[in-house]
Amino acid sequence: MKTFKKKDFPVDQIRRFLEPGPIVLVSSFWKGKTNIMTMGWHTVMEFSPSLVGCMITSENHSFEMIRRSKECVINIPTVELAEVAVGIGNTSGREIDKFEHFGLTAVKAQKVKAPLIQECFANYECKLADSRLLRKYNFFILEVVKAHAPASPKYPQTLHYRGQGVFMVSGESLNLRRMFKPQNL
Amino acid sequence: MKTFKKKDFPVDQIRRFLEPGPIVLVSSFWKGKTNIMTMGWHTVMEFSPSLVGCMITSENHSFEMIRRSKECVINIPTVELAEVAVGIGNTSGREIDKFEHFGLTAVKAQKVKAPLIQECFANYECKLADSRLLRKYNFFILEVVKAHAPASPKYPQTLHYRGQGVFMVSGESLNLRRMFKPQNL
Repeated sequence: MKTFKKKDFPVDQIRRFLEPGPIVLVSSFWKGKTNIMTMGWHTVMEFSPSLVGCMITSENHSFEMIRRSKECVINIPTVELAEVAVGIGNTSGREIDKFEHFGLTAVKAQKVKAPLIQECFANYECKLADSRLLRKYNFFILEVVKAHAPASPKYPQTLHYRGQGVFMVSGESLNLRRMFKPQNL
Repeated sequence: MKTFKKKDFPVDQIRRFLEPGPIVLVSSFWKGKTNIMTMGWHTVMEFSPSLVGCMITSENHSFEMIRRSKECVINIPTVELAEVAVGIGNTSGREIDKFEHFGLTAVKAQKVKAPLIQECFANYECKLADSRLLRKYNFFILEVVKAHAPASPKYPQTLHYRGQGVFMVSGESLNLRRMFKPQNL
């Protein structure tokens, strides 16, 4: 599978790949085991600290792993990983080792114990910042404490879920920079 | 400007247009005045009740209008409205009437006082469902109580913000329905 040569990426700029709304692969680590889940419900919440909010159904094996370890990695896959992302969503970490089953490479993270997925375009190391919405909404507020992304391409071809088994693949860029007020960029 | 012939749309299916992560136009109404803002930080949170979480900076004129009225409409624009969306983000409802200034048509909603924007592809009438994250994160949890969308096209060409004045326009569909477990669709 394709891999990417990554550099440190500023955590206050992680919106570039996350704000357009791609599905992501969330990796976790707890009691000696890793896991991966596919996630589509998330939003950027703040630049600095770099916050991301996301919904993880409590039936997911990953839910307890992230809640207990208070850490995870948000990995951003490109279109080449579409079938892998669906496969990860179809299976449970209770039954299989997803890194092994899907031929993915676990790379050591710098600030969390959860592994980075090497085959994903970007990797955001996260720590649980606020759990007050966990009980009612299964909503995690995470702080991105370290980010990794390639210098190019500037914009990866990401996958965006439309429901009913259909994804949208990210399309053309439309640069309207000339129209923006500097403070709104 | 282009308009759409809309039908009632099931509130538990509003993810179809929102989950891929488009920027949206949020309309509001308070004390006899309407307003519109451009928003990019939001996520679906639940199917039923149909919940959407979103971040609105408290400096925005819309913030207090939505907080006080406890209502708004999430309007989903297509690529034709790109320059209008930027213009709306560049201006303040404290100074101008955005419907008038941008030539948009305010249509009466059914369940909220905030108006629908006729020129947008879909309109989701929302009531404030939970304000506990307002003070710390400016994060509104909204319930979609009524939705309007055309029967076709099934997938509109939406705008997704990448930062620095650059949008991504939604691209091709990738149908992997055959790979999904029925309960995951």
